[in-house]
Amino acid sequence: MSDAKPGEIMAREIAEQPAVLERILTEGLPRIREAAERVKAAQPRFALLTARGTSDNAAYYAKYLMEIALGLPVGLTSMSTTTAYHAEPDLRDVLCLTVSQSGGSPDLVAHTEMAKARGGLTLAVTNVAGSPVNQASELSLDVLAGPELALPATKTYTAELLTLWLLVDALRGGDGSAAKALPELAAGVLARESEVVDLAQRYRFASRLVLTARGYSYPTVREAALKIMETSYLPAHAFSGADLLHGPLAMVDNVSPVVAVAAEGAGGTALEPVLERLHERGADLVVVGSAEHVAGATAGFVLPSGIPEELSPILEILPLQQLAYHVTMSRGLNPDAPRALAKVTQTH
Amino acid sequence: MSDAKPGEIMAREIAEQPAVLERILTEGLPRIREAAERVKAAQPRFALLTARGTSDNAAYYAKYLMEIALGLPVGLTSMSTTTAYHAEPDLRDVLCLTVSQSGGSPDLVAHTEMAKARGGLTLAVTNVAGSPVNQASELSLDVLAGPELALPATKTYTAELLTLWLLVDALRGGDGSAAKALPELAAGVLARESEVVDLAQRYRFASRLVLTARGYSYPTVREAALKIMETSYLPAHAFSGADLLHGPLAMVDNVSPVVAVAAEGAGGTALEPVLERLHERGADLVVVGSAEHVAGATAGFVLPSGIPEELSPILEILPLQQLAYHVTMSRGLNPDAPRALAKVTQTH
Repeated sequence: MSDAKPGEIMAREIAEQPAVLERILTEGLPRIREAAERVKAAQPRFALLTARGTSDNAAYYAKYLMEIALGLPVGLTSMSTTTAYHAEPDLRDVLCLTVSQSGGSPDLVAHTEMAKARGGLTLAVTNVAGSPVNQASELSLDVLAGPELALPATKTYTAELLTLWLLVDALRGGDGSAAKALPELAAGVLARESEVVDLAQRYRFASRLVLTARGYSYPTVREAALKIMETSYLPAHAFSGADLLHGPLAMVDNVSPVVAVAAEGAGGTALEPVLERLHERGADLVVVGSAEHVAGATAGFVLPSGIPEELSPILEILPLQQLAYHVTMSRGLNPDAPRALAKVTQTH
Repeated sequence: MSDAKPGEIMAREIAEQPAVLERILTEGLPRIREAAERVKAAQPRFALLTARGTSDNAAYYAKYLMEIALGLPVGLTSMSTTTAYHAEPDLRDVLCLTVSQSGGSPDLVAHTEMAKARGGLTLAVTNVAGSPVNQASELSLDVLAGPELALPATKTYTAELLTLWLLVDALRGGDGSAAKALPELAAGVLARESEVVDLAQRYRFASRLVLTARGYSYPTVREAALKIMETSYLPAHAFSGADLLHGPLAMVDNVSPVVAVAAEGAGGTALEPVLERLHERGADLVVVGSAEHVAGATAGFVLPSGIPEELSPILEILPLQQLAYHVTMSRGLNPDAPRALAKVTQTH
């Protein structure tokens, strides 16, 4: 790492994503399908998802997917209920899924152990086979992204999204084939980096950023905000479109930069009234999404059309990872190693 | 409203809170206990909480409470799964609680109707008896705060918190008496407004604010951030202490103002490593909480000691509501009527 130029590692890991997606679709799929069979046999009635940081955004994506595609009510774990308050929930009939890059944070391990002891079916989704979280879990999936060296997680995020999608698709009886085109589409999106460089200039001197989306794309803007905050130190606030209207919209005016993700499908359509309100406020609006939504914005990045909305988040995040990278580089900072952070965060 | 001076309505409603808490403890309690009996009889195995904005922060508080005190796994509803994607979850054995000031937002009504149709036990907690959400629900509780006229919700928030605490306390067999001192303690906290006026000066020229807490106090900082954003338009970011360490900490340096809530109890103790990291970063740290935690900070507001940690959020938010009010007034804005907002937000 010491020989690398600033940003070199993050740039390389962003670029690896098409190959990682391909590896999951080929090498990863059989084990994902095996895990799905085990989960199906247990007939869970609820799911609890446990994660932090970038993996928490992947878990949020899985929450939408499981609720919509499987009709399973889902909760995101508040880990302090276990680690600080020693809650002892009844987890019989509950699928307890832990998502983590390293599988090493003590609170994730403690929560997973509690979940197993309290009757939950534990499933670890991590990038480190044999990690403490995997050891604490009944079932494990490796997201096969390979070692991630930059502090900001990029390839492990899309690897987690695809692994979780394939798991849910197998649970509803699908064969995963709808994702086949993803590696090539991802490569196509990443190749349009010059468009992102133009967008990044816009935020070089910004003092804050608001991001918004609805449905499947909401985890995308949460992850984009985290990426921007941890690399460029620019305060970036992600709101679901509906939550934005319940208060925070007052913050937005004609000098406030807003980034919206509005893909083809129900989520993008549900965001339209929010985009209208942002126009009324005179906001500077950059849209990542369908050609139609980009056309109505100040500027934007058009995503490939024709893939299922469920899979769109795996493409949406790519230009936003590049955006975080280029905003950071334009500010003279090193996105590979943000100040104050460690790769394996030891939270309790 | 037209005759009111700027901020007069919000100030009046903040001041009404001790009387509202008293009303809930006397007039409200019998109906809360009745509802608890109905819930107990249904033996729910899971809870889903549905809300937006300020009420979503009250629901988040109830999530901690139900998980810790009742051992019930809880999820917060992503409403677009119903309104945009028409998910049809299996909600048998699920308590479906909708929390809302007005009970009038179409998405809340649609989600509540779906929950009832899909087998959930629906319970509305609102400030408008007979609202559309109440009509859609099997059980209803009025939080008895009286008409709220300022756009930023204040008294309905603490009224929702106390109603939800009394409900959970009844579900575990308590008699609610631990809350008896709250109205008087709340009046004592509100009477120390001059301390908050001093703290507010600190943020008059701030360009952003980070708030953090853990456990029961985490919903408090979310609500404080929302209040500050919607009245003063200052970007205010709330993070759980653990999430702050997973990335956003990089944003914080020696000119970044941070507000932490660290009450007596497990949540405040769990925040200590985070407070240490913030000190290392040289952050300007204001603490609302126990005398011990305030003593280690740049400045702060000491909360009364000796009440159960579960009830502390009802006091913690009071100086933070006053802080939002005074920061807004010092910036020459009118907190009663923030730009771009409507009292009943019509989201779908």
